Amino acid sequence: MRRRRKPGSKEKLLSHVEYVTETPQAYKGKWKKDWFKNDNPIHLELGAGRAAFSVKLAQKHPEINFIAIEIKEEVILPGVEQAKELGLENIAFVWVNIMNIHEIFDTDEIDHVYLNFSDPWPKRKHFKRRLTYRGFLEKYAEILKPDGWVEFKTDSDVLFEFTLNECAQLGLPMQDIGLDLHNRNTLDEIITTDYEEKYIAQGKRIFRMLFGLEPLQNKEEK
Amino acid sequence: MRRRRKPGSKEKLLSHVEYVTETPQAYKGKWKKDWFKNDNPIHLELGAGRAAFSVKLAQKHPEINFIAIEIKEEVILPGVEQAKELGLENIAFVWVNIMNIHEIFDTDEIDHVYLNFSDPWPKRKHFKRRLTYRGFLEKYAEILKPDGWVEFKTDSDVLFEFTLNECAQLGLPMQDIGLDLHNRNTLDEIITTDYEEKYIAQGKRIFRMLFGLEPLQNKEEK
Repeated sequence: MRRRRKPGSKEKLLSHVEYVTETPQAYKGKWKKDWFKNDNPIHLELGAGRAAFSVKLAQKHPEINFIAIEIKEEVILPGVEQAKELGLENIAFVWVNIMNIHEIFDTDEIDHVYLNFSDPWPKRKHFKRRLTYRGFLEKYAEILKPDGWVEFKTDSDVLFEFTLNECAQLGLPMQDIGLDLHNRNTLDEIITTDYEEKYIAQGKRIFRMLFGLEPLQNKEEK
Repeated sequence: MRRRRKPGSKEKLLSHVEYVTETPQAYKGKWKKDWFKNDNPIHLELGAGRAAFSVKLAQKHPEINFIAIEIKEEVILPGVEQAKELGLENIAFVWVNIMNIHEIFDTDEIDHVYLNFSDPWPKRKHFKRRLTYRGFLEKYAEILKPDGWVEFKTDSDVLFEFTLNECAQLGLPMQDIGLDLHNRNTLDEIITTDYEEKYIAQGKRIFRMLFGLEPLQNKEEK
């Protein structure tokens, strides 16, 4: 089944050559040098949607390069236009299936990953589609530095519980686990997504954690 | 400040010599051999209150020895009387301050620990009083077998979040993390406490997890 696209949206998107490229593969291993033309760390938002989160972060942190990843290119257009309006030079937008992310980025090329409000796929039988399923975590591990963290937020207790258990079973390091981010925050700043703003207004609980992708090892296994 | 006691409650308690002893220290390292007179594993409930949970478990699992620990001896009396009524032979009751637990049990004498609905001490400044604070975990580690688990339930998201973070920071293994036990259970059986029954009736969310006390080690530290 073909997805319907707004006519001309891809062409519009591709006209913003400072922010997008049709051949992101060409930058694999060279994003800092050839795209951003600096040596700053690269933070990746996976499943970025409109990428309002990445745009806000890019505005606040000019010392970091941001790349917003989304599978549907048409979704990303508003983020690109906003970045242009703000004159941001430290953000890029890439549309790609996350399973092919290794074609875009090299080993250890990424310093930090954000996963915000990804689809919880609440039915048990769909757990392999969740973006924190171990099959996906392996993909992220291919491109994230060994000491890098995945920063994860969701309003879904199903997805958060699943993620905690994936991390626990894989023996991954975790930190800053929050079961009610906006009512019991210990962070200096919270950058919200569009979804998040809506959920906060509805009084919904937001879950949050960081996890690494390099397993801790059991003493016995040494 | 002295706690008020019901007059005669201690004497009443001590009359149940099959279930309690005034000198539990004398059994240190010898609970299986000298008290239970078998070689079955020992499961410990810490902060057992009336010990309804331990009594139910003891009834269901005659192949396991249970010991219910509570600081206030008078609280434990109903549990003792219930155990007697049921004719249970695989349960004992000890009142002791948890910080002195090493005086009662020897290294590796305990196979499994339960922590049910312990006081959340919700104010941040009181975190050292929470029974999952690392200072307490160290005490439990002294008596729990290296491959043993602490089974932890609470209705407090503050306490559960705190516990997740203590375990994460200490690199402790975790498993079976549940953010809504009674609505999304994957266990074969759930033994409830008196508190729990009340909370379920109120529609409250019950959190649950298991954690070990032997830290996983970071690869880099090998």
